[in-house]
Amino acid sequence: MKIHIVKIGGHLINDRKSLHDSLEAFCKLKGYKVLIHGGGRKADFISKKMGIFPKMIQGRRITDKETLDIVIMTYAGIINKNIVATLQSYHCNALGLCGADGNCIQSYLRKIKNIDYGYVGDINLESVNTYLIKFLLKNNIIPVLCSITHNGIGNLLNTNADTIASYIAISLAKEKDCEVELHFCFEKKGVLRKMQDSESYLKKIDFHLFKIMKKNHTITNGMIPKLDNAFFALKNGVSQVSIGLPNHLNDVNDVNKTILCL
Amino acid sequence: MKIHIVKIGGHLINDRKSLHDSLEAFCKLKGYKVLIHGGGRKADFISKKMGIFPKMIQGRRITDKETLDIVIMTYAGIINKNIVATLQSYHCNALGLCGADGNCIQSYLRKIKNIDYGYVGDINLESVNTYLIKFLLKNNIIPVLCSITHNGIGNLLNTNADTIASYIAISLAKEKDCEVELHFCFEKKGVLRKMQDSESYLKKIDFHLFKIMKKNHTITNGMIPKLDNAFFALKNGVSQVSIGLPNHLNDVNDVNKTILCL
Repeated sequence: MKIHIVKIGGHLINDRKSLHDSLEAFCKLKGYKVLIHGGGRKADFISKKMGIFPKMIQGRRITDKETLDIVIMTYAGIINKNIVATLQSYHCNALGLCGADGNCIQSYLRKIKNIDYGYVGDINLESVNTYLIKFLLKNNIIPVLCSITHNGIGNLLNTNADTIASYIAISLAKEKDCEVELHFCFEKKGVLRKMQDSESYLKKIDFHLFKIMKKNHTITNGMIPKLDNAFFALKNGVSQVSIGLPNHLNDVNDVNKTILCL
Repeated sequence: MKIHIVKIGGHLINDRKSLHDSLEAFCKLKGYKVLIHGGGRKADFISKKMGIFPKMIQGRRITDKETLDIVIMTYAGIINKNIVATLQSYHCNALGLCGADGNCIQSYLRKIKNIDYGYVGDINLESVNTYLIKFLLKNNIIPVLCSITHNGIGNLLNTNADTIASYIAISLAKEKDCEVELHFCFEKKGVLRKMQDSESYLKKIDFHLFKIMKKNHTITNGMIPKLDNAFFALKNGVSQVSIGLPNHLNDVNDVNKTILCL
């Protein structure tokens, strides 16, 4: 079975119209498919409304107990369920999951090295319940995963959505009967050569070019872990990895996306 | 197939120990089972923290847009996912659902008569996707439902959890191959003869006695719709309906519960 793993995140989640357009593009994608979504700015918004200010160290969110509750409410609650309801309205038989549901993704609390990230769950290739995902797909149910995992002993943890997308793709690609493509959708046309020029997206990027662009700071911030995850998937059996606008899911002309190659 | 529909609500949800005890009792219950949970006081707590004060008319919550978002976050997010993670830690293969997931329960916006209840979804006997519930059960997946439904055109709605429990029980009982028992768990030993005496629970209550106790105000407030739902289930093919402490799920000696009869 050929499976498309689609991640939507960033500004696509924040803006109602962008989210709807993304979900429409996902619906139009033919064949077996899984959606993974991030949280956008919604968790920050709810945090602030509750008088809890996001704690960041070196640009990364620290998930203390209060923040964990907020990301669970936001990712597994309001965002996941609204996405599922929208997909259902498009006759796409979505079913929302966090990692605890059906023991879908088990994680372990990140070990403290220099920084204590708090309730953050790291995953490995044994973490993904591929049996459940394939079982749902084969029965015409489309899994919609948020980035909340569990540790198997009753605790929910916060896990990066790009990482979840990559690990799901890799785990499924390791199954004998699966061919997997991984698509990262965000608000840009792809990996940009010039940060300020939204049209300057690369048609292709290989690992060597990625390293150079990281070194000369053309690729920065959140794009680095995203592409790390993307190349990790490509190196581990995922047959195609792309990154671009949501409409690249339906496009046959190779525009609005960057394709990764080794 | 014999199916137990278990509703937990009220104070059982508010208190960590009571919730864990309830989930342990649910786990010990043998055979096919479905859990439905309410929201307890958590939504009020989060509302207040966000500076939104619950709007009530004649003792009933009004679900405006802000409140809807809060109940989605609370019921489908924090409560549902923590219950699922706890059940998974007991090796009970739970999977959390709201009504939109797999189109599990479709509702329609309540028509405005005297009071506009806001984003409240009413359901009928065609609302429940019994196919999905049976399919999950037969594949060793235990559905855990919160009281959020959807209208099929992209909107989530707030529905009473007791009503959901009754309608799921009735819908399954109507299937040729199902026998259904419905158990309401709360913080009391059953229907009390004297409100102040927690030991004064009835072993049995029939519809005639219910009507008398309603008339003389022995049964009041939230117990009235709960028992209305319970008798409605009993009149519509559910083979047994009980109400009592969570430990009545595992008890063979007929204590800590009231059994309903026609």
